[in-house]
Amino acid sequence: MAKKKKEAPITGITVSKEEDFSAWYTELINKAELADIRYNVKGFVVYREWATITIKKMYAKYEELLEKNGHLPLIMPSLIPESNFLLESQHVEGFAPEVFWVTEAGSSGELTERLALRPTSETALYKMYPLWIRSYKDLPFKRYLSCQVWRYETKMTRPFFRGREFHWIESHNVFSTMEGAMDQVKEDMEMTYQMLQDEFGIPIIFFERPQWDKFAGAVSTYAADALMGSGKVLQQPSTHLLGQNFSKPFNIKFIDKDGKEKYGYQTCYGPAISRIYGAMIAYLGDDKGLILPFDIAPVQIAIIPILYKGKEEQVLEKSREVFEKLKKKYIVKIDGSDESVGSKFYYWELKGVPLRIEIGPKDVENQQLVIVKRHDGKKFTIKEDDLINKVDELAQNYTKEIKEKSLVDFEAQIEITYEKDAAIEAINNGKIVCCGFCSIDMDAYQCAEVVEKETGGEVRGKRVDEEKHEFTTCLICGKPAGCTVYIAKSY
Amino acid sequence: MAKKKKEAPITGITVSKEEDFSAWYTELINKAELADIRYNVKGFVVYREWATITIKKMYAKYEELLEKNGHLPLIMPSLIPESNFLLESQHVEGFAPEVFWVTEAGSSGELTERLALRPTSETALYKMYPLWIRSYKDLPFKRYLSCQVWRYETKMTRPFFRGREFHWIESHNVFSTMEGAMDQVKEDMEMTYQMLQDEFGIPIIFFERPQWDKFAGAVSTYAADALMGSGKVLQQPSTHLLGQNFSKPFNIKFIDKDGKEKYGYQTCYGPAISRIYGAMIAYLGDDKGLILPFDIAPVQIAIIPILYKGKEEQVLEKSREVFEKLKKKYIVKIDGSDESVGSKFYYWELKGVPLRIEIGPKDVENQQLVIVKRHDGKKFTIKEDDLINKVDELAQNYTKEIKEKSLVDFEAQIEITYEKDAAIEAINNGKIVCCGFCSIDMDAYQCAEVVEKETGGEVRGKRVDEEKHEFTTCLICGKPAGCTVYIAKSY
Repeated sequence: MAKKKKEAPITGITVSKEEDFSAWYTELINKAELADIRYNVKGFVVYREWATITIKKMYAKYEELLEKNGHLPLIMPSLIPESNFLLESQHVEGFAPEVFWVTEAGSSGELTERLALRPTSETALYKMYPLWIRSYKDLPFKRYLSCQVWRYETKMTRPFFRGREFHWIESHNVFSTMEGAMDQVKEDMEMTYQMLQDEFGIPIIFFERPQWDKFAGAVSTYAADALMGSGKVLQQPSTHLLGQNFSKPFNIKFIDKDGKEKYGYQTCYGPAISRIYGAMIAYLGDDKGLILPFDIAPVQIAIIPILYKGKEEQVLEKSREVFEKLKKKYIVKIDGSDESVGSKFYYWELKGVPLRIEIGPKDVENQQLVIVKRHDGKKFTIKEDDLINKVDELAQNYTKEIKEKSLVDFEAQIEITYEKDAAIEAINNGKIVCCGFCSIDMDAYQCAEVVEKETGGEVRGKRVDEEKHEFTTCLICGKPAGCTVYIAKSY
Repeated sequence: MAKKKKEAPITGITVSKEEDFSAWYTELINKAELADIRYNVKGFVVYREWATITIKKMYAKYEELLEKNGHLPLIMPSLIPESNFLLESQHVEGFAPEVFWVTEAGSSGELTERLALRPTSETALYKMYPLWIRSYKDLPFKRYLSCQVWRYETKMTRPFFRGREFHWIESHNVFSTMEGAMDQVKEDMEMTYQMLQDEFGIPIIFFERPQWDKFAGAVSTYAADALMGSGKVLQQPSTHLLGQNFSKPFNIKFIDKDGKEKYGYQTCYGPAISRIYGAMIAYLGDDKGLILPFDIAPVQIAIIPILYKGKEEQVLEKSREVFEKLKKKYIVKIDGSDESVGSKFYYWELKGVPLRIEIGPKDVENQQLVIVKRHDGKKFTIKEDDLINKVDELAQNYTKEIKEKSLVDFEAQIEITYEKDAAIEAINNGKIVCCGFCSIDMDAYQCAEVVEKETGGEVRGKRVDEEKHEFTTCLICGKPAGCTVYIAKSY
């Protein structure tokens, strides 16, 4: 996927993505000015302009889709009283090690109750739901929050991949039946494919997570994994079937059609936009820098006037003309800086601007211009009259092309294994292992521990889309296999 | 402005806005389902769906204007180390009584340094600026954050007006000269007028605040006041000339054209979107409920089919036809509920939907429909063929009409006074007092204390736009007047 180091341009990324993904990612973050890790609280980073603009566009796309599917937005307080938090025992147990606590305020000093900085909003929101939900007519009740959450991570942090504060959407839904809830889980997975694969070019696979790795308080968890460089996966949005695990302690009831009072069935879904951004730039980027889907690029077209002495004015005039034509529909910049043409090319490639238009004196003479696509470097010389048509065509296909290339890359990373040693080797070679396993219930936890200890990978779960592979025995203990699972290292 | 109680519809607001603004506002918030105050942390409220949708649209409008004016977005951590906070002494003194502190995290317990939940982001952001600003070429450096802030308010909280967590934009800018900074202050004021008056229909006046009431750490503060019901003002966006008060302790320097290293000149600007929303619904609303500017209404047009037995299908069909025509351009709902026609009217009026379209059997017969404007109740019977033209026209003028009515109301509330007793009476009658005053420097603080004690109002400062009134003596001490000020009660 990545180009060799010798091809890297002078001002591009100096480390090859293929050779050292981690170093490449760090350099990309710094050189393209996406995040600044020098903020003086550990695990907290600043998202810089170029990243923030795209993240905001990603939020807007996700919110539009959620609203189209009947989810309405709310804004919730970000502080949760400890007493709320204690209501669901598995939930508190799962999150307690990760909570930041507010204990003091103002001059008056200590608060009477500790307040959690929300690590997730179930225990805030579900205190309100009984006040709003009365009857089956209020169901399904589908709401979402666009907000940040805080988690006192002990794992290594990395900009966008994992931080102690991150930015997500959480959707919280109540249904009158378990089937209704399960349908929502399916819709959540569909939305994830639509957004991550179609819009952001990140290939994913959904797994039903093993019981030992589900969301604290859930009946079951369905999570997407994206493949990153160096063969590790990065967890992407997950959706959780909560059943009545929260509706009972939080008293979320409704009067059903039969006049009886019943507890609701719930789901929640959490696309972490900042992490999706991280996966996107990591997955799509190359040794020249960022590659961005067309719609969410902060600048979509960069016009580079190529200036020769004596002919500056006509080139600049033509550039402005092209700019005026395009700006009605696209986000366009003319690079009028003093840098060399080469540096300008490198700069806008580093920033991932999808289309570059070059205009030199010869182009002006011949009423033509040159357009270069960032993601594959393809170059077109076109007649000026064709400008809008050609740009429209390139713009329309750009994200689709990225996506098609991405999907091919993904399946190639999976390796079928029948023995532990082969699995260990495959994992070490940066592959995702597909194998037989006892089950994903708690009683298979011992085999999972062996996986982690001996391969360094984790059981990601059962594939949710079509499973083509069947195994007779468990990779670890050799007993009859209950299911097919995937094993991978993860960030 | 408000209608008399007897005219209030059955399901509208039962308290007259004119008679009891506070009770009216509370009922509006509850009945229109804008906020829920039952969240179990004092001073924190939930913003419900209808409010959240509009607040998001207000953010989008404000951000668009800021970006048009060259401000770029950033996302900053919301936790600020106490050590940052201590760098500017006036700032820390001003904000210390209002800070929520994070002191514990996870299982490991106490943090080594207290972390403030940002009450405002100067001390977070200005630690980063020296890392990003090197030369005069980097200036002006204009950035903004869209985020929430937390303040441990001791004043009474009220949904959207004042809460312990609120949602705002803060813009932080660096210039090479004091003049450049002052120009930004002027641009901020212009943006405020453009947004609040033109887009949101809230009439405001900008005041240079007295020195005793400026932003902690600023050279001077310019703040907008909006007039609320019951004659009190509510502070709206403020912009602060910071000069070098922060750039020195935070070491924000640049190499100037002359090769010398200099400290930057700064400004910051803080439109609190949630509070602007509060001002807007409070100012525009009437005894039927909300009145909303056209662009930011969650639903812009409500279609009410008026059903008579035997003729339901043709009316519903026509309603769907009208819906299909309008939905390409507008946010439209057909109210197909079982409620009575009257209840439907009241409901959508309560919700502030700008246009109502009524379609009954006679209208279908005559190929006509009825359109009613929410803000003034005007009713039009139009030919079906004119639908799009008429709706376009009404939509285009709707916000302008609200604004024109608003502006007239505002100036009428100001009363010129020459004696303290007259001022006290005017304040008690819900007026804003215009009078002579010593000055707005610290040496006039004694007179200001008398104002507060004896009138219950506060000196809001010197009017920034044209001042038409001149006084010879200070209202309080009778010494020669240094300026004209305005006194009002405030929320």
